[in-house]
Amino acid sequence: MNIIRSAQNPVIRVEDVAPSRPDFKVLGAFNAGVAQLGDETILLLRVAEAPVTDNADEVLVPRLNDAGTSVLIERYDKADSRYDFSDSRFISQYGRTIMLTSLSHLRVARSKDGIRFEVEPQPALFPEHALEAWGIEDPRVTQIGDVYYITYSAASAHGVGVGLVETRDFRAFKRRGMMLAPENKDVMLFPEKINGKYYALHRPVPKAFGAPEMWIAESPDLDHWGNHRFLMGLSAQGWDSARMGGGAVPIRTEHGWLALYHGADANHRYCMGAALLDLEDPGKVIARSRIPVLEPEAAYEVNGFFGKVVFSCGALLLDGTVRMYYGAADEVMAVADIPLETIFNTFS
Amino acid sequence: MNIIRSAQNPVIRVEDVAPSRPDFKVLGAFNAGVAQLGDETILLLRVAEAPVTDNADEVLVPRLNDAGTSVLIERYDKADSRYDFSDSRFISQYGRTIMLTSLSHLRVARSKDGIRFEVEPQPALFPEHALEAWGIEDPRVTQIGDVYYITYSAASAHGVGVGLVETRDFRAFKRRGMMLAPENKDVMLFPEKINGKYYALHRPVPKAFGAPEMWIAESPDLDHWGNHRFLMGLSAQGWDSARMGGGAVPIRTEHGWLALYHGADANHRYCMGAALLDLEDPGKVIARSRIPVLEPEAAYEVNGFFGKVVFSCGALLLDGTVRMYYGAADEVMAVADIPLETIFNTFS
Repeated sequence: MNIIRSAQNPVIRVEDVAPSRPDFKVLGAFNAGVAQLGDETILLLRVAEAPVTDNADEVLVPRLNDAGTSVLIERYDKADSRYDFSDSRFISQYGRTIMLTSLSHLRVARSKDGIRFEVEPQPALFPEHALEAWGIEDPRVTQIGDVYYITYSAASAHGVGVGLVETRDFRAFKRRGMMLAPENKDVMLFPEKINGKYYALHRPVPKAFGAPEMWIAESPDLDHWGNHRFLMGLSAQGWDSARMGGGAVPIRTEHGWLALYHGADANHRYCMGAALLDLEDPGKVIARSRIPVLEPEAAYEVNGFFGKVVFSCGALLLDGTVRMYYGAADEVMAVADIPLETIFNTFS
Repeated sequence: MNIIRSAQNPVIRVEDVAPSRPDFKVLGAFNAGVAQLGDETILLLRVAEAPVTDNADEVLVPRLNDAGTSVLIERYDKADSRYDFSDSRFISQYGRTIMLTSLSHLRVARSKDGIRFEVEPQPALFPEHALEAWGIEDPRVTQIGDVYYITYSAASAHGVGVGLVETRDFRAFKRRGMMLAPENKDVMLFPEKINGKYYALHRPVPKAFGAPEMWIAESPDLDHWGNHRFLMGLSAQGWDSARMGGGAVPIRTEHGWLALYHGADANHRYCMGAALLDLEDPGKVIARSRIPVLEPEAAYEVNGFFGKVVFSCGALLLDGTVRMYYGAADEVMAVADIPLETIFNTFS
């Protein structure tokens, strides 16, 4: 495949990101949304942090307090048999996740060439109310006119829902509320109205039955969503047979909306693929990758906080080539340039 | 407690309902929405049916075909070790529900006195597309002006979402699409706009973390929903500590919106309780039942298709008394008259 990973990869590393406070360490800077703002390329990073501890017998859990005014740090003793600490990403009890071990916020990085980024020293968006108490994650940025709309996962003890924020400059942000209720993630707005309506891809996770699959919804105003339709589901086997969800904001091409999406197999190996959606009704799938567009192969994709993951939240179309920004191994950011033709070739 | 169950209970029994086709049997007629239409009281029943079989070694599973044109019946051999038949309500594999063993539709029953009902011989609403392939369930009816809006659970292999239908006469119905994506149930519209917006209670079921608890959302047009807010959660112990969800359509009282809701404990014993919500902002909970308003105690509540269940989808306020219609034991319909004061007394 004709895919060119940047020689500068990873373009953002953990050590490039200052923690939001001195007693925190950065675990990952990944899964960034992307936008063009004037002559700058903006990455809106998910930065995952945890409290620093030198005691291997304890886990310090960060979360927002109920008033939304400050971060609480709770100490758990790894010897406490009431809890399951076997997955370092969370603490479980009776088979249910009861705490995340990191707290994510969103951070701006800026670049003139799209490759060399300067990461801002402080968060752009930090959790600020009860439905964000466990962190805000995996933003997607859609530019509509002069406004950039950011959809992101809002995690709390009440589940993971989808928040909407708007900005014009990536300095001042306005929260517009939770647009989709739990459990939902991987939401991206289409960059224009289609037949008078806004559209979004989303990825609910039903509990009783059903699977983590892709849906599409419509809105008159970006805040209120309805006419939910099932878009596409897991494949019977292979790279996208266990879970899937939208990735980058859809890109208009002459053949249809190009929706780069992620899929994982039963071994939690995350790849990127693509779907082509009808330009007039994006609820119709025209084509879909039979093989991945990008698989975790480079060292920084295979090894990291959670290895064997490539996960894009944003891409730009530059003269027939998709410049895909993606989180690698839930830890760093990378870039790959992929000709449209290479992506279309995965459909057949 | 000053609760008067009708002496005619159950007011609708399984034997009062003709199956929708001769090779089906009715398992239950329950969880009905209620409306006043002229001088008639309407119950919109959930009727659960299954194919008739006299072979105890097989399970016949009904579902809509992919085109939405007819019902398929699939045969499962109870000796097939690939499947788990231990819960008669569904078939599981690897711990996941893969089929429901019954198919529900919605049926109209009419009454002049609110107690003696005549059940129509055919379905009012039958599953008719892929997102309803496993059945339509548990309707709530909200009258706004001359239009009756019906919210219902739409079940399929893609999960349980929430459909919206409108009618003026309970003879002609118009589907308005899926208003909330899976997994969500127990949705009821408020009967009037509040400060220019429609409101609905809903009950998402998140998978990764979070619990089946009550949320509220807003809409400009009933089709598109947003500004999802967490409303109220499980109690630490007792009757509503395992799951909960909205029940009857909220009733305006001078003290606030009265929202009768269901709660269950870890033993799947379902009771009805109540919450009082702020008249100007129904996202604010003023009070909540400490003890149930109604518990399964009568024989038809304790014994049935799924015993120890009282589950209301609709109630009428008649001169200071709430006439609550409720499904009993997932099998029949019952009625109880409960003075408002009795309900308010559960708050303290």
